[in-house]
Amino acid sequence: MSLPDTVLAGMRKTNGLFCSTVIRQRDMDALDRVYTPDAHILPPGADMIQGVAAIKSFWLQAITSLDVKDASLTTVSAESAGDTLVEIGRAELTLAGGQIIPVKYVVHWKRHDGAWKWHTDIWNMNQ
Amino acid sequence: MSLPDTVLAGMRKTNGLFCSTVIRQRDMDALDRVYTPDAHILPPGADMIQGVAAIKSFWLQAITSLDVKDASLTTVSAESAGDTLVEIGRAELTLAGGQIIPVKYVVHWKRHDGAWKWHTDIWNMNQ
Repeated sequence: MSLPDTVLAGMRKTNGLFCSTVIRQRDMDALDRVYTPDAHILPPGADMIQGVAAIKSFWLQAITSLDVKDASLTTVSAESAGDTLVEIGRAELTLAGGQIIPVKYVVHWKRHDGAWKWHTDIWNMNQ
Repeated sequence: MSLPDTVLAGMRKTNGLFCSTVIRQRDMDALDRVYTPDAHILPPGADMIQGVAAIKSFWLQAITSLDVKDASLTTVSAESAGDTLVEIGRAELTLAGGQIIPVKYVVHWKRHDGAWKWHTDIWNMNQ
């Protein structure tokens, strides 16, 4: 994981925004600063979804139906790939009852509008 | 999907090897020609696994326990990322009883030993 500090800082900023603003505050408009406009998500239990408007609907429904209260994201590996990045990571979602759901993911990152954003986001559960 | 024909042909060759030789013939040694030596897989229902030896054990167990008879892989999008590729795709696994399991995936491809191979492979189910 020999990425420049500025890149790692950009990734931390975007990941922090997802955890603090999207998940904790349930502010779906912050997803404009997390995903590229034409991003794909590939959620378990649903078909793939493209475009940030549809991604906002997905996350609002997912967060409210599961009653997710908090999330943390931890990078396991991140490699530069041309002017993009490929990250493998682990996430933990904390539900209202205190239950923690461990998740693993791959994100293809792109620069967009001055920030590092998620262009392709796929995840699954260990159990 | 504006990749050079030679790249698309290389992807088709590797994907074909996985379907015809790994899945249909249950020849796990062919996985040396599918994955890079230090590849990661992120399977649903298990933790992430690194290295082609461990990946062979995973697939042997998964294919035999589910009794998978056939597989097909379809590229939805593929983008070059430096000297690597990021692919979004759909797969169908056919079980012995004829049941078909739809799968979606993201693969980060790298050149290795003269071939295009899967360096990171993550998937999940729609249901």
